Amino acid sequence: MASKVRLYVEHPLGEGQSVPLSREQAHYLFGVMRLAAGDVVSLINSVDGEWDAEVVEAGKKGGVLVCSAQTAPLQMPPDLWLLFAPIRKERTAFIVEKAVEMGAARIMPVQSAYTQSANRIRMDKLQAHAVEAAEQCGGTYVPPVDDLAKLERVLAEWPAGRHLMFCDEGMAGRSAALPSVLAAPCAILIGPEGGFSPAEREMLQTATFAHAVSLGPRILRADTAAVAALTLWQQAFGDWQ
Amino acid sequence: MASKVRLYVEHPLGEGQSVPLSREQAHYLFGVMRLAAGDVVSLINSVDGEWDAEVVEAGKKGGVLVCSAQTAPLQMPPDLWLLFAPIRKERTAFIVEKAVEMGAARIMPVQSAYTQSANRIRMDKLQAHAVEAAEQCGGTYVPPVDDLAKLERVLAEWPAGRHLMFCDEGMAGRSAALPSVLAAPCAILIGPEGGFSPAEREMLQTATFAHAVSLGPRILRADTAAVAALTLWQQAFGDWQ
Repeated sequence: MASKVRLYVEHPLGEGQSVPLSREQAHYLFGVMRLAAGDVVSLINSVDGEWDAEVVEAGKKGGVLVCSAQTAPLQMPPDLWLLFAPIRKERTAFIVEKAVEMGAARIMPVQSAYTQSANRIRMDKLQAHAVEAAEQCGGTYVPPVDDLAKLERVLAEWPAGRHLMFCDEGMAGRSAALPSVLAAPCAILIGPEGGFSPAEREMLQTATFAHAVSLGPRILRADTAAVAALTLWQQAFGDWQ
Repeated sequence: MASKVRLYVEHPLGEGQSVPLSREQAHYLFGVMRLAAGDVVSLINSVDGEWDAEVVEAGKKGGVLVCSAQTAPLQMPPDLWLLFAPIRKERTAFIVEKAVEMGAARIMPVQSAYTQSANRIRMDKLQAHAVEAAEQCGGTYVPPVDDLAKLERVLAEWPAGRHLMFCDEGMAGRSAALPSVLAAPCAILIGPEGGFSPAEREMLQTATFAHAVSLGPRILRADTAAVAALTLWQQAFGDWQ
């Protein structure tokens, strides 16, 4: 019934490799999950795939695991970024979680002109949500969560060769079919709940790398829109094909 | 800046029609939103579209609105049902909210053999979440939320002519392309987080109306899976085309 505990570590994984645990990791494995020496967990590190590892030392302040066998190779998500404007705390955490489950390779919180709650977001917590989501969803890769950046600056410094699909309630009624130019490398920008400012809209409408996509006739919350846009893209160009 | 307050009422809407308010509605409009006589709100009732209505009486225990003009016709969602097994309280509310935003016509909580939290779900609250989501997303229709029913019974009494798309982590690796037989009338069944029981799986695999669909190589939480499945369907057959 109980499936193996999955744990992300920042440490190389390989046959016979020993992996020291931090105090927090030891607390989680031995205090919360009640594991003990001899138990086996699954480790991921975004590099070496998924490995079985046995508990060889279990303490209150730390512990040691030793890797036995690789159980899955590294599976990188497609080269897709998700840009979104942070919203209320709980929903921002949801967007990060969903981005990981849906297979975004990089998560970029952006501050649009009308973003109100940016200063209330603990950015360090967002990376922890990404780790937790990867542990939960069976992924072997944890996408990095960037520091908050101004949307205007991100657009002004946009890398050559990467297209941007932006989802905007102003586009309701257009088709949800994705143009082939949006194949990887690509990025998705979820419109902030307050809408884009006139300057941002102007930048998006004139940038040759940006393409508006409709997400249907109803207004979606940002977390719903993120999953919907990632679904459209993964089915058309990503690893759901 | 502030957009009009939208309110769902169980009352006919039409030119010159007066609409009495319940105590809760009066509290929301006049206590929470601070509206007063002369202010205009948007009303929906799942039948008559969206109407502007002016406050003509505002009291602590009730009030009266009078409809002036229709601002949008009724837009029914496609004939698509969403079936899901209730999960933790907050996430169940999210699934209902997302189903409304994404345009499901009927929401059916089902109790699978491995559903654990069914008895902790307040079913009356779920309908209230659907109303709130319709008010928020600009919709003119509030899908009914059925009472909880046993999945086995729902499948045994399945209506002729309606196909069922079921999303199951056991299907990872299959294509996410939807067969054309899934056009409306259709239903989506989100696999419960504990998985289907052997008897349920057997029913789904042998029923001629049921079709398995993959939602990619990662394991999605039920609320993520609901949005993803609704996206695939709306783009292929629904009102996102």
